[in-house]
Amino acid sequence: MNFASDNTTGASPEIIDAIVAANDGQTMPYGNDDYTVRVADRIRDIFETDAEVFMVATGSAANALALSTMTASYGAVLCHWLSHIYEDECGAPEFFSGGAKLIPLEGEGAKINPEQLEKYAGRGVGDVHMVQPMAASVTQISEMGTVYSVDEVQAISEICKNRKLKLHMDGARFANGLVQLDCSPADITWKSGVDVMSFGASKNGALTSEAVIFFDKSMAREFEFRRKRGGHLFSKMRLLSCQMDAYLKDDLWLRNARHANAMGQRLKQGLINLPGVEFPTTNDANMLFPHLSQNLIDALHADGFQFYDDRWGDGIVRLVTAFNTPQSHVDAFIEAARKHTG
Amino acid sequence: MNFASDNTTGASPEIIDAIVAANDGQTMPYGNDDYTVRVADRIRDIFETDAEVFMVATGSAANALALSTMTASYGAVLCHWLSHIYEDECGAPEFFSGGAKLIPLEGEGAKINPEQLEKYAGRGVGDVHMVQPMAASVTQISEMGTVYSVDEVQAISEICKNRKLKLHMDGARFANGLVQLDCSPADITWKSGVDVMSFGASKNGALTSEAVIFFDKSMAREFEFRRKRGGHLFSKMRLLSCQMDAYLKDDLWLRNARHANAMGQRLKQGLINLPGVEFPTTNDANMLFPHLSQNLIDALHADGFQFYDDRWGDGIVRLVTAFNTPQSHVDAFIEAARKHTG
Amino acid sequence: MNFASDNTTGASPEIIDAIVAANDGQTMPYGNDDYTVRVADRIRDIFETDAEVFMVATGSAANALALSTMTASYGAVLCHWLSHIYEDECGAPEFFSGGAKLIPLEGEGAKINPEQLEKYAGRGVGDVHMVQPMAASVTQISEMGTVYSVDEVQAISEICKNRKLKLHMDGARFANGLVQLDCSPADITWKSGVDVMSFGASKNGALTSEAVIFFDKSMAREFEFRRKRGGHLFSKMRLLSCQMDAYLKDDLWLRNARHANAMGQRLKQGLINLPGVEFPTTNDANMLFPHLSQNLIDALHADGFQFYDDRWGDGIVRLVTAFNTPQSHVDAFIEAARKHTG
Amino acid sequence: MNFASDNTTGASPEIIDAIVAANDGQTMPYGNDDYTVRVADRIRDIFETDAEVFMVATGSAANALALSTMTASYGAVLCHWLSHIYEDECGAPEFFSGGAKLIPLEGEGAKINPEQLEKYAGRGVGDVHMVQPMAASVTQISEMGTVYSVDEVQAISEICKNRKLKLHMDGARFANGLVQLDCSPADITWKSGVDVMSFGASKNGALTSEAVIFFDKSMAREFEFRRKRGGHLFSKMRLLSCQMDAYLKDDLWLRNARHANAMGQRLKQGLINLPGVEFPTTNDANMLFPHLSQNLIDALHADGFQFYDDRWGDGIVRLVTAFNTPQSHVDAFIEAARKHTG
Repeated sequence: MNFASDNTTGASPEIIDAIVAANDGQTMPYGNDDYTVRVADRIRDIFETDAEVFMVATGSAANALALSTMTASYGAVLCHWLSHIYEDECGAPEFFSGGAKLIPLEGEGAKINPEQLEKYAGRGVGDVHMVQPMAASVTQISEMGTVYSVDEVQAISEICKNRKLKLHMDGARFANGLVQLDCSPADITWKSGVDVMSFGASKNGALTSEAVIFFDKSMAREFEFRRKRGGHLFSKMRLLSCQMDAYLKDDLWLRNARHANAMGQRLKQGLINLPGVEFPTTNDANMLFPHLSQNLIDALHADGFQFYDDRWGDGIVRLVTAFNTPQSHVDAFIEAARKHTG
Repeated sequence: MNFASDNTTGASPEIIDAIVAANDGQTMPYGNDDYTVRVADRIRDIFETDAEVFMVATGSAANALALSTMTASYGAVLCHWLSHIYEDECGAPEFFSGGAKLIPLEGEGAKINPEQLEKYAGRGVGDVHMVQPMAASVTQISEMGTVYSVDEVQAISEICKNRKLKLHMDGARFANGLVQLDCSPADITWKSGVDVMSFGASKNGALTSEAVIFFDKSMAREFEFRRKRGGHLFSKMRLLSCQMDAYLKDDLWLRNARHANAMGQRLKQGLINLPGVEFPTTNDANMLFPHLSQNLIDALHADGFQFYDDRWGDGIVRLVTAFNTPQSHVDAFIEAARKHTG
Repeated sequence: MNFASDNTTGASPEIIDAIVAANDGQTMPYGNDDYTVRVADRIRDIFETDAEVFMVATGSAANALALSTMTASYGAVLCHWLSHIYEDECGAPEFFSGGAKLIPLEGEGAKINPEQLEKYAGRGVGDVHMVQPMAASVTQISEMGTVYSVDEVQAISEICKNRKLKLHMDGARFANGLVQLDCSPADITWKSGVDVMSFGASKNGALTSEAVIFFDKSMAREFEFRRKRGGHLFSKMRLLSCQMDAYLKDDLWLRNARHANAMGQRLKQGLINLPGVEFPTTNDANMLFPHLSQNLIDALHADGFQFYDDRWGDGIVRLVTAFNTPQSHVDAFIEAARKHTG
Repeated sequence: MNFASDNTTGASPEIIDAIVAANDGQTMPYGNDDYTVRVADRIRDIFETDAEVFMVATGSAANALALSTMTASYGAVLCHWLSHIYEDECGAPEFFSGGAKLIPLEGEGAKINPEQLEKYAGRGVGDVHMVQPMAASVTQISEMGTVYSVDEVQAISEICKNRKLKLHMDGARFANGLVQLDCSPADITWKSGVDVMSFGASKNGALTSEAVIFFDKSMAREFEFRRKRGGHLFSKMRLLSCQMDAYLKDDLWLRNARHANAMGQRLKQGLINLPGVEFPTTNDANMLFPHLSQNLIDALHADGFQFYDDRWGDGIVRLVTAFNTPQSHVDAFIEAARKHTG
């Protein structure tokens, strides 16, 4: 039973069916196919705006390509020091941007503290010795499983607007955040000042499908060339587009996220009152970061439960539930934890 | 009826079946899954050597990442001026290598002329003002549809060895070349001096699956980091690996290539004696580059046949057959051409 | 006696005097000094336009930094295949531009043939698979010692304007060209459509001083950051600026160039009628590319004359005169050649 | 009276004399001259080892080029968060390395804390998602004016050796540190484990002259190509070499540093007991970072003293003395401060 990540799963049946269906027949390559046209329309419809949409296959590609259009090589991108773009992409944003600098900011629960943003957004502007702040990036939900509220995104985008920074949202788990909020996709993105989003499906039901959405279309001009140059233009693009299309159809993405979150919260409720278990961070979606005793960690691993425990400091573990995590797995985990702490 | 490219097709049924099967169950991400382990073994088996194997999704990624491990940023890669890496990847090799220079060479039928290679391989060596020749790249089959013989590859690799250049093979259509030759996969690659190959499946039955094969394992050390940094490490890697696995199982790849080539040659035989049709280049596989009169080009397009005619100079068109091109389409094309030239 | 290059000399006495004088006293660093302000004004005055001016120390830095503001990383720079930027800068333009492609064009005497330019300027525009033509670069005087006329530069800039390419002039030996032409500095640059020029002094009397002149000021916005990032912002900038200032004062630059050219033409007249000597290229300034017999080359080298003979093909040598080449050296060379061919 | 930086000065008379002398006569370009050969020998002599030596013109070029040979593009360079390479070079190390990541470490007085180094040196090693620690860089004297002792450098290099990191020393003000220590140049560099040093002269008596010294010669192979490609290979290299040669001759460098430090310490002693003046950092060389009241800062600026006060937090100012700072300027500053605080 695997709580290591939401990328250990396969795809939703609806998405596999879409791949099988899309495989029939001939289409023109490189995105000049009906699936790619249709998925862009569907995204514009869901986000209620005339965005520019590009399909890529991985979240790192989405983030790095998006950011490369938002900063010059001598620019700086402000992000949380725990963010995926800072920590987990082997320098992909630096590579695609020609060596821009990522400035690590502090903030509770891996969410950017606006005061920190304000401090660094204005630092060195116009000083030729220093990299120039050009963009900020927030992750929804964050790498510590927390959810940015509309107010929080707006507070950040206001600083960005004042300082002329572009705002990127890494939405690898966007659906998991959205279903926790009482707002529309538009509300928490472009209506709150997000310029460009990496919109992920791979962790929530697809195999490999991510969209880069330019809410500010004027910024999209370079994207196609950068994508090709990065080796990310697929000849058989329909493979990516048909997944996203099925993902968005009939609210599959929301249903998947709601299930993942429900399983996460069930797990949290089952663990929260056990002796020696603490939740230093508020996690309302599908990623939990409780503190467990080393004995408990060892015992659960010995039981065969898979999860990571070596990265967030003493005793903090990560437990992730997915769109298809069975309730029985969650209950088995809780039962085992109860037994070991009893 | 589409003769524009072999990337307008979907995948072979065996490969779609493999995707559906691989989707079941949980696996560890990022290539730590059984499919990825198995496909590497299969490739080592087929090529009869202990190679290092990495999966990527596109041919441009395979080429650019491979070349980036073969040249320094101040190096030069010698290639044909018609090669895909020089012409059709929007500068991906330059991007991934940090700005290495691709030197365009001449040669009949898009195959590198060894004398040209010899001339440029030794040019500027040790001269700090000039980029340093570090690698050469040949395409099998070439971008003009010609096939390198074992002798031809060996002639090129001998120059490379003498000049201390690494040799890359762009094998986007490797299978189409191999089935024309009376030799083993090993014979035309590492036994002939190829160090690294981009081994493509996407054009011959897969949806999106390419392997980078390092016959010289010592050169593979950096690859994993460069792949991740390029956004090309897939969390759900099994999607790529299972395709290649099915591609190589039970000789599917060879059967597909033989069909594509047979259709290509049937098309060639049907056209070659028509008035006004000439084959300036010898094409023995699945890509033909005949010269047609403008009237004939226009008439065929008007009939609804799709193919490119705007890139190779006056009257040269490209006709590509694929693993699943129906014989009836070939015959219809021949019949139409016969009628228009009759 | 050295005819190898015009960079084997020291500086003009006036320029050394200027360095000694500028050394006195304290100034604010990084170009915030009076010399740097004054030299920019002087250049604007000479070129009769409100240009943006930046000082750098080497010609390669001037060219590479200038070009990096004129092309995206996915762009192409069209230049002659014999140009310094293509051949002699170890890939500096590729490095500074993030991997843009330099496309080598043909043309007599190392001057770009407008038909070639037209052909490549429109090639692949808007096609995502191909690098996008964004700039062209001409060298005045060219690497084969020929001089672009006003008409020739205008013919090129017209193509650039139609195709939306920016035009760069590598003016490493601009003065040597200008004094051959019956026109003003403005006429052969911005009035003929040049957007940005590398304006060299180092080969014509300075030690190390080059200006990048943006005739189109809107393009200069990024330059300061790129210069610093390239390690080319000098803390004691006055060292560079005072040289250029003295270079331009009282027409020193023109006097120096006239002398160099006069010596070159004296050498040419002395050699042109000797048996076995031919001038395949018309050279009117200070660089000659005659064809000599191998016997004559060997004999002159044995006499101790220094010049290059190994780069331009069979029997072509390069003879360069400088701002301070003594007439006696020229006459000695002629005399020796006469003796050996007599 | 200027205490803003040691780069507001001209050059020592001996160095200007050397430039004037070197200007005479012809030499072969690009470092193939006697001055360049001699200065390398002199450096090897002073450092008592067979190092590889390259001349460049700026400290940023020295640092960025050196580091680019010490890390892959997917590597990380560990440095203090106040270091010049992290803060003040507009991303030059990122640019020259192809986008390597600089990891900011903590430490008193801008000196790296070994525990921090140990923590980050082993972080993510072999993990494909993370940049790979490959080098560390220390600044001697540090950006806060502190001096690394031999023991301190050794403690750092031991960690580097255990973790297989290369160690770089930014020696922009190396002489100012050396004369404070009771050791040889060799002791504080390669004998303490430094692999590569940027050895500056520009701030201590030269106009523009820096050497990159490879104590580990095996690492120097790429440098020449990277230098040329960066536009940092000077045709008239003797200009750079003759400055460094004069700098090192007859201990000029040590005499200059001793004067600068003596003036710094005189200034410190004059200020340290004034009311409202504090020295939070121990500064033993030529850069002081005292805390002054805002009234005092304003009053000194009003008197015409130049110094920076806007970068190190509330009330911290930077006072820098140079090789030629007159004692009378120091005394005038002290007198003014005494008057304003009396």
